[in-house]
Amino acid sequence: MEKREQLYEGKAKKVYATDQPELLVVSYKDDATAFNGLKKGTIEGKGVINNHMSNRLMAYLEKKGIPTHFVEELNERETLVKKVTILPLEVIIRNLAAGSFSKRYGVEEGTAFSMPTIEFSYKNDDLGDPLLNSYHAVAMGLATQEEIETIKKYAFAINEELKAFWADCGVILVDFKLEFGKTADGTVILADEISPDTCRLWDSQTKEKLDKDRFRRDLGGTEDAYAEVMRRLEEHLR
Amino acid sequence: MEKREQLYEGKAKKVYATDQPELLVVSYKDDATAFNGLKKGTIEGKGVINNHMSNRLMAYLEKKGIPTHFVEELNERETLVKKVTILPLEVIIRNLAAGSFSKRYGVEEGTAFSMPTIEFSYKNDDLGDPLLNSYHAVAMGLATQEEIETIKKYAFAINEELKAFWADCGVILVDFKLEFGKTADGTVILADEISPDTCRLWDSQTKEKLDKDRFRRDLGGTEDAYAEVMRRLEEHLR
Ligand SMILES: Nc1ncnc2c1ncn2[C@@H]1O[C@H](COP(=O)(O)OP(=O)(O)OP(=O)(O)O)[C@@H](O)[C@H]1O
Ligand SMILES: Nc1ncnc2c1ncn2[C@@H]1O[C@H](COP(=O)(O)OP(=O)(O)OP(=O)(O)O)[C@@H](O)[C@H]1O
Ligand SMILES: [Mg+2]
Ligand SMILES: [Mg+2]
Repeated sequence: MEKREQLYEGKAKKVYATDQPELLVVSYKDDATAFNGLKKGTIEGKGVINNHMSNRLMAYLEKKGIPTHFVEELNERETLVKKVTILPLEVIIRNLAAGSFSKRYGVEEGTAFSMPTIEFSYKNDDLGDPLLNSYHAVAMGLATQEEIETIKKYAFAINEELKAFWADCGVILVDFKLEFGKTADGTVILADEISPDTCRLWDSQTKEKLDKDRFRRDLGGTEDAYAEVMRRLEEHLR
Repeated sequence: MEKREQLYEGKAKKVYATDQPELLVVSYKDDATAFNGLKKGTIEGKGVINNHMSNRLMAYLEKKGIPTHFVEELNERETLVKKVTILPLEVIIRNLAAGSFSKRYGVEEGTAFSMPTIEFSYKNDDLGDPLLNSYHAVAMGLATQEEIETIKKYAFAINEELKAFWADCGVILVDFKLEFGKTADGTVILADEISPDTCRLWDSQTKEKLDKDRFRRDLGGTEDAYAEVMRRLEEHLR
């Protein structure tokens, strides 16, 4: 496999073509953004951690029956993935109220739901990734009803797997964002990344935040938090 | 039946107790507000029209098998209704993109959906009635899953009835907001009002707005528009 031209540079990753049309290389950067790009910064070593973590978790999910884009880790920052057409939906699962949910609905951060919730936002930076529901998504042609059902099924299953996984690491999975895409034959698979950039992870005992909220909220110790969850994940998988 | 003390004064209606605990009197005002109360004004004669129209439409829906709070029109502005505990959800059905939907998702006003959409917002003025989905509503204890299913079923059925009804009046039912409540025994019924305050109604031929958007957007001729849709409704029911 040969890496070819850069196709896209996002806020956290670069994407390259390869000599195979159905494969891409994703390269993780240390760049961090928040609030739809308004806040910018660097989290030293983040790219290396997110690359490793995302790959470990996707490999774990594959074993549990969830199809993902993960193919092979190439080096510290780069991974070979299946190329998909990303469905323009951010898929958010919440186990506890936090962040935008707490703010929007006036529910105290840390309030546990009796059942996990799922929500979609329209992946559209110009519109500020607005919340929408599955009726809107279908009406706007962003996904079919069948794709939505598949995504819901996978997203809830991923939540159960990852909640248990992180619990074994002494970490509460508060909420997370997923992206799904379609391969050339229309199969829906999990894409993008699973990392402290895209998950809220709290220490089970102290409730300390071990994720990008440290950066968003200027709490300090962001690098240490990323390293700590990575350490716990590696230890658990050993 | 005797009207007793005022229980509530809302932006568009006053609500009174009666000598029967399961009945209320609703009194329609000419006051109009928009943008969560930021814009205030008067639409002369609106209370009389909305009272009549809402009652006519609810009586019509009852005949079609939809349970509503409507009991009896008492006079020009006042109606006897079944007292309910309002579920804190605004239920919005859309047939064409307009208003907040068009703005939020960048979809041109008047774009028709292949299927009607339903959405909920959390009836909470302090939070600005934020959009939420049924998972959120259940997680926050605003309604049970079963109540949500009942509401969806009724709301889509109401849409089919009213779409056809208004089409016969030469009016396009673009979108509308409903409120549902629970009677003492937990039965979910349609409550509040159905009027040009709560529906977008466009002339089928000219696409002229015949609803509260004339007030919201300072288009002029608001009183005439309300009178015109009322006239068409009366004519159709005659
Ligand atoms: N398997 C895949 N095939 C194709 N594209 C992918 C795949 N996995 C992720 N992507 C996309 O690659 C890009 C990764 O870059 P990054 O995460 O930095 O983007 P971003 O700045 O978050 O912007 P956005 O997600 O809004 O495009 C994203 O657009 C993501 O949706
Ligand atoms: N059958 C009913 N039983 C009890 N309450 C009702 C019934 N029908 C409507 N209501 C409530 O009565 C009030 C009517 O007043 P109005 O429509 O002016 O309120 P509003 O200013 O829109 O404020 P809000 O709807 O946010 O309370 C609303 O609160 C509505 O939810
Ligand atoms: Mg991204
Ligand atoms: Mg009202």
